[in-house]
Order: sequence, then C-alpha cells, then structure tokens
Amino acid sequence: MQFSSSLLENAVNEFAKLPGIGKKTALRLVLHLLKQDTKEVGQFSEVIARMRSEIKFCQRCFNVADGDICSICANSLRKQEVICVVESIRDVIAIESTQQFNGTYHVLNGVISPLDGIGPDQLNIESLINRIEKEKTEELIFALNPNIQGDTTIYYIQKKLQPFSIRITTIARGIAFGGELEYADEMTLARSLQNRLPVESYVSNR
Amino acid sequence: MQFSSSLLENAVNEFAKLPGIGKKTALRLVLHLLKQDTKEVGQFSEVIARMRSEIKFCQRCFNVADGDICSICANSLRKQEVICVVESIRDVIAIESTQQFNGTYHVLNGVISPLDGIGPDQLNIESLINRIEKEKTEELIFALNPNIQGDTTIYYIQKKLQPFSIRITTIARGIAFGGELEYADEMTLARSLQNRLPVESYVSNR
Repeated sequence: MQFSSSLLENAVNEFAKLPGIGKKTALRLVLHLLKQDTKEVGQFSEVIARMRSEIKFCQRCFNVADGDICSICANSLRKQEVICVVESIRDVIAIESTQQFNGTYHVLNGVISPLDGIGPDQLNIESLINRIEKEKTEELIFALNPNIQGDTTIYYIQKKLQPFSIRITTIARGIAFGGELEYADEMTLARSLQNRLPVESYVSNR
Repeated sequence: MQFSSSLLENAVNEFAKLPGIGKKTALRLVLHLLKQDTKEVGQFSEVIARMRSEIKFCQRCFNVADGDICSICANSLRKQEVICVVESIRDVIAIESTQQFNGTYHVLNGVISPLDGIGPDQLNIESLINRIEKEKTEELIFALNPNIQGDTTIYYIQKKLQPFSIRITTIARGIAFGGELEYADEMTLARSLQNRLPVESYVSNR
C-alpha cells in the first residue's frame, strides 16, 4: 500500500498490529477516525492509553480491577465462599453477562499445556491453593474450556485440593442450547448421556 | 456485557464505536493491548492522536498530506498536467498501489447523491474547475466507482468543463480480471462489449 502521508501510514501500521486486523481494515478504521472530531479521537487514544497504564489486577482473584481488589471481590453481597475457576478475564465477563453466578472468581491466566510450555507454575494455581487455605471456601466450580488442557488443569488442581474438604464441581458439558444432536461430536454426546438429568430438575431450571 | 473495571469498559466502548467492530471484537482487541507493554500501547495511542491532530489535506488536491501540499503534488517527476479525479483518499491509495499512474489526483470527497443530500457544492468540484483554469491541465481521468452517483458526477463535471479544451477520460469498465462472464451483470457485460478493444492493444498491455 502506498500512502502519501507518513502520519496516515504510521496510524494504519499501528492498527494493523492488532489481531485479526489486516491493512485494508486498518485503513478503513483510520479513515473513519480521520472523519471524527480531533477531540473525539483524542478521547479514544487517551482512554486506551489510560486503560493500559492504570488498570490493575485484583490481588485476590487476578481479575482486572480499578484498584487493588476487583469490584467482585469487594462486593459483600456476593458469596465469597464460592470460587469459580476460569482461564481468562474474558471468561469472567462471559459468566458475569449471564447474571446467574453470585460467587467470586479465580483467573488462572491460562491452562496447563505442556505442548505450549505452560506448566502449573506459570498459572495462578498456588495463589488459589493459598486462598483456599486462608478463606473458608465452600465450593470450587471449574468453568474451563472443555478440552484436554482444561481437563488436565482440573485434574491437577483437584489432586492438590484433596486435603481440603470442599465441594468441587465443574460446569455441565452437553449439547448446547439450540444445537442439534446430529452434528454434536461423539465425546460431547457421550458425556451428555452420562451426565443426564432427571426431567423434573431440567423443567424447574427453565 | 458486565465488566468489573470501568477502565476496561471505557476502552471496549471506544473500540466498539469503530465501524464493523462489535463489543466482542472490541473486547478481544482491548485484552490484546492489555497483554502488550505499556510503552507499546502508549505508542499506539499517541500515533493515532497525532495522526488526527497533525494530518493536513493538500491545498491543491485534497489528498492527505503531512504539510500544505501532498507528496504527490510536490513531486516534480509526476505529470502535473494529468489529473485523476477520485471519490476518496482510499481510492488514491488503491491507484497508487498499482504503480501504474504517474499523474496527480483530485479528491472530490464524495460523489453527487441527491438521495443522501449531497450536491455539487458539498464536494471539491469548484476547486477542480479553478485548478483547471489556472493550471495547464492536459487530461482529466475520472476514476469513480461505476454506479449511478459516479456517472452523475462525471456528467456534471464534464458539462462544467466544456469551455476548456482538455482530454476527458474515464477508467475502463468491464469484466474484472479473473471474473466470469456468466456471473457478470448485464450492464457490465453490455459496456464491456461496447468498449471492446482490438486484440493487439490488449496483448501489448499485458
């Protein structure tokens, strides 16, 4: 691509560094910003810079936070004795959006994946064990992605937690709502058969 | 979407204002930036803000420029007597990328479109006429998108230019390279028949 302005070219190159954004899309975004007020674009750029420099990670659960402790951990209305273990901040946002969970989180920041060189030490697992030691945790819910890495991580943490008498659960795996049996993979279908529910509880959950 | 950090939420909202970027994509981009160095994100935000506040538009052709005159107008190696009329800066970049054009441009900043309330006065048409009056223009090439609005704009400008004895051309419309006759619309196919080329000139152009 040939630009007649280095200012434009630099801006396009910066946008094109973002994941999933190619040069053409980057150009479209930059030309869009070029049409906006200088003030608005200034706000865009300031908010992004501030987000990166001022955002913190909760010292308790490693979720994003505006201060030392995130708003979920600081909320006394939430069940602090229930911990939902997730892979990333994105999963916290996904679960929060369902408005069905009233406990706290623990963000592992990944899952055990030997092929990618990620072992338990690189993840927030020790802090989770420490947290359970100190706090009166009643239940630990694993909400990890259903794959080998997720299952390995569940197995590893669950073994570490054997000394503690807490309830350990995992979110249900099964046929997604709106999905079709015909197209489900065998693993999912097999699991959803194994973990079948009495119809009464299914109906009352709706 | 529920965020536990207002810094994160604001950043996602800013990204989601961009065209073609929804909340989920915005979140993905923001979480990507969150993983980068503060310095890198600072650079991203600074380059965007600078682009908007410092970029200028060429006083002659309305292309983007780092100074008063764009690098194409300032380049004495380019044929200043040939003007290619385009709708937007994006088209300048597209044509420049072909490396086949060695003249100058005139960016109209849109095309005549009564339905959208865009008349000749909102476009850089008067400045084009003034430019042709002052300069020794030899040829005007219309490189507008092939649709009703583009054709209307060509017709309007061409009438205004009747007093001047300059060559007025338009880029060829026809079947795109790699396209299939079968799927071409009638209008395009009809035009490409009307404007058929002698095979010698076609072969020599390759």
